Amino acid sequence: MNLKQKFPIIDALQASKWDRATFQQLADSGLDAVHVTLAFWHDCKETLSIISKWNQWFIDHNDLILLVRTIDDVRIAHDTSRVGIIFGFQNSSPIEDELGLIEIFHTLGVRVMQLTYNNQSLLGTGCYESNDAGLTNFGRNAIDEMNRLGMVIDVSHTSEITCFEAIEYSKCPIAVTHANPISYRNVVRNKSDELLIALAESGGMLGFSLYPLHLEDGSDCTLESFCQMVCRAADLIGVEHLGIGSDLCLGWPDDYLEYMRSGTWSSTSSKNESSSALIWPDYPSWFCKLNDFSNIGEGLLETGFNSEEVNMIMGANWLRFFEEVW
Amino acid sequence: MNLKQKFPIIDALQASKWDRATFQQLADSGLDAVHVTLAFWHDCKETLSIISKWNQWFIDHNDLILLVRTIDDVRIAHDTSRVGIIFGFQNSSPIEDELGLIEIFHTLGVRVMQLTYNNQSLLGTGCYESNDAGLTNFGRNAIDEMNRLGMVIDVSHTSEITCFEAIEYSKCPIAVTHANPISYRNVVRNKSDELLIALAESGGMLGFSLYPLHLEDGSDCTLESFCQMVCRAADLIGVEHLGIGSDLCLGWPDDYLEYMRSGTWSSTSSKNESSSALIWPDYPSWFCKLNDFSNIGEGLLETGFNSEEVNMIMGANWLRFFEEVW
Repeated sequence: MNLKQKFPIIDALQASKWDRATFQQLADSGLDAVHVTLAFWHDCKETLSIISKWNQWFIDHNDLILLVRTIDDVRIAHDTSRVGIIFGFQNSSPIEDELGLIEIFHTLGVRVMQLTYNNQSLLGTGCYESNDAGLTNFGRNAIDEMNRLGMVIDVSHTSEITCFEAIEYSKCPIAVTHANPISYRNVVRNKSDELLIALAESGGMLGFSLYPLHLEDGSDCTLESFCQMVCRAADLIGVEHLGIGSDLCLGWPDDYLEYMRSGTWSSTSSKNESSSALIWPDYPSWFCKLNDFSNIGEGLLETGFNSEEVNMIMGANWLRFFEEVW
Repeated sequence: MNLKQKFPIIDALQASKWDRATFQQLADSGLDAVHVTLAFWHDCKETLSIISKWNQWFIDHNDLILLVRTIDDVRIAHDTSRVGIIFGFQNSSPIEDELGLIEIFHTLGVRVMQLTYNNQSLLGTGCYESNDAGLTNFGRNAIDEMNRLGMVIDVSHTSEITCFEAIEYSKCPIAVTHANPISYRNVVRNKSDELLIALAESGGMLGFSLYPLHLEDGSDCTLESFCQMVCRAADLIGVEHLGIGSDLCLGWPDDYLEYMRSGTWSSTSSKNESSSALIWPDYPSWFCKLNDFSNIGEGLLETGFNSEEVNMIMGANWLRFFEEVW
């Protein structure tokens, strides 16, 4: 499948270590837009420094990437054979305890923010906490503000009750940008059928993760197994609510995995993601590099989706969703 | 003189304490745009909080004010009987030691930054320092970046050598937004004739200050004296380089004056501005409220400027300058 002839192809989550070589691979992959993670545990000032770095990259690699502020920018990326970069946070740490920082970051281009990353945040409870207190006072205010500005509410790493409350409270549909159904693999990061049904009923989106620990048989997961999962999810909540959020994390040394898991909140490495190993797991052989998105498209066709449905899953659903929320 | 019928009327520096009543006075004054001070000694995060406050004001007082991002916004302000707010810093403290923060703040709407505020900054030497080391390494990089983005370089509170070096180094013309000629009143904050000539020769602008300590006879300065000063400056550097930068600071308690002078860098109050008193001086009787801009226009006409020249001084020169730099 030649993705360069298709539009739109969107990956709703990548958290790689970026450099020109990776941007070149992105541009060669056929992707039109990718939601990239700017921050995990970073505070406001650290996040501004990261945005500054991206601003310089947009100048230095203007032939390969551009910032996505509106969905028109995704079309511009396609038409100029570049990749649109959608700024997002995997945690609310960049806004610290200040509501007004949401608009500040929105003005700087941020279009997606997770309410929590694994742990309790000031907005809600993360998926690895023992007790789930749901949305906080600040969390409800933050959702109001994100609704007002048009910023996607992401609950991929958020606890079950907090997810349900966010779906209920938000006036806009929300997203699980990168996770799979718990019925496919029973890990803390995956989502229950009840939650996925509520998500879809409110107009929300699920982006399927390719991160090995979210897949059946981990690194040995087959393309057929992955596509069968997509098939069952389409039966459960409707194909129009499905997309890809690969969770591709390329190029990082192992100690960055430790930072992603434990930030500065733990003096010993945290044992999240059902694995005590602090080394990056291997991605499945059919999805281990940016060029492999075409394999997913082909797998979905072979599983029985028609070409229009494959187009929806590979990006058209995300584009419609972003247009609605932004 | 009914300023509401004139366009454009621009004040290149006000640092008042803002609330709805003051915004109402601004809108009633006939001003089309005003450059407001967001930061004196504030660091990056404190400045973001101030911008957040303004973002809320732009929503709450949308009938009176709007943010100026381009000169078109000044015309929109005039046509809708509102006042355009031009964001500026009186110091480089908001960018701390990070070049990339200039673009961050530019994206958030900041269009003017002083290189220094009285003291040595990381960019250059302030006008109250004993030794004048001129532009720093970071200062030259900051000027390159401000030139690239189109941000006005302001040297009102900057030392003589640093001013000269900034004029020489910058590819864009620069501004003294609020000061007077030293030949009019010999205080540290006013500027030498040599400097004003170099400023004008490079296409720069001088905004006349109404702050009493910069005026002949202070609070007792007459309108005629002020206008005669403008006249002599026009003879010296040309009327096309002149504007108003009133330095109007309304509504602050006396302890804010202490903060403006001493920030957190001194444990005792600094004796700047040629006055040991830590109380706000009275503005001249003919310029003590926002409605008094019309008095200046009338005074300039009586001094012998023709109506076109008065129009230039009251705002057209600033608009042309901002268009060139932004």
